Amino acid sequence: MPKLWTETIDAHRAAVRDAAMDAMAALVAKHGLVAVTMSQIAEQAGIGRATLYKYFPDARAVLTAWHERQITAHLDQLTAAVDPAAPAIARLNTVLHTYAHIQHHSARHHGGELAALLHRSEHVDHAQQRLRDFVQQLIAEAVHAGDLRDDVATDELATYCLHALTAAGTMSSHEAVHRLVTVTLAGLTARRP
Amino acid sequence: MPKLWTETIDAHRAAVRDAAMDAMAALVAKHGLVAVTMSQIAEQAGIGRATLYKYFPDARAVLTAWHERQITAHLDQLTAAVDPAAPAIARLNTVLHTYAHIQHHSARHHGGELAALLHRSEHVDHAQQRLRDFVQQLIAEAVHAGDLRDDVATDELATYCLHALTAAGTMSSHEAVHRLVTVTLAGLTARRP
Repeated sequence: MPKLWTETIDAHRAAVRDAAMDAMAALVAKHGLVAVTMSQIAEQAGIGRATLYKYFPDARAVLTAWHERQITAHLDQLTAAVDPAAPAIARLNTVLHTYAHIQHHSARHHGGELAALLHRSEHVDHAQQRLRDFVQQLIAEAVHAGDLRDDVATDELATYCLHALTAAGTMSSHEAVHRLVTVTLAGLTARRP
Repeated sequence: MPKLWTETIDAHRAAVRDAAMDAMAALVAKHGLVAVTMSQIAEQAGIGRATLYKYFPDARAVLTAWHERQITAHLDQLTAAVDPAAPAIARLNTVLHTYAHIQHHSARHHGGELAALLHRSEHVDHAQQRLRDFVQQLIAEAVHAGDLRDDVATDELATYCLHALTAAGTMSSHEAVHRLVTVTLAGLTARRP
């Protein structure tokens, strides 16, 4: 049974929400996404069904909240992976590798089904935009340093990168994901005649 | 009113099916995908509602058939674009440009909505496989000719290409699509130290 009796009301609320989301994630991992009910989530989280309904109107809302938390965690993971003292090209390399491995891992665990359910929801658009901005900023710095091609706009290069790296979801091994990042980065590299 | 009185029964059937699919395409372009009914399709195709039901159980089946026909037409367009006498790298270049422009055009016209409805259906998987095989074969020939990198397996390079080029759906102009293909091809190019 999770510890819900924390100091403040806010922390208590966050703990209930987190418990529900953790429960959702566990249930989804076990049964797939379609079959999960509010009763199951409440039971798994060790909270009352009535309490759960105070926080989420339905199972889909728990799923969306869980997905939002996942995405935020992934974005934090991407930014944390970067050594701020490293040159832009090295930071970009790290971020693209991290992103590709997240794609690879996510696709293994809840690829098509989750994508179909959550596709084009608002929080995904928002997170995608943050990610794009982050990658574009790194690309712009690396172009400025002369390490990447300057004949294509940085927003187009960022879009190319992120689409190319979705291929990581279909790759069979970590080595293949690594090669995908190498190939994708090669597309960004400045051509010098 | 379309000409349905053709010579043979097979041709007649094909004509009815085509008329229904054309009607679907016209209705979708006008009203979006969700709102289209069997009655509307029959009326637009100039055939009876009872006749339409002999060919398709519901509007979704017409949509799927239409999508299948679109995809086949796109694959034919890709193979037809290629000059068999040209070097593999030139053929690959042509195919990737053609594919990227199809992606660009399709996304403009029925991107998210259609993708969500038809995502992961069997005929899409089949067509994707044919496309992948076709692109992989061209890449393999170009690698053999020494025009592309040989340090990554050709199936991985094909997967990279097709994912990168889905970015064409989000590009704002034909010039941007062209640059995307250039960048994607650069990723495939052999590195010589």
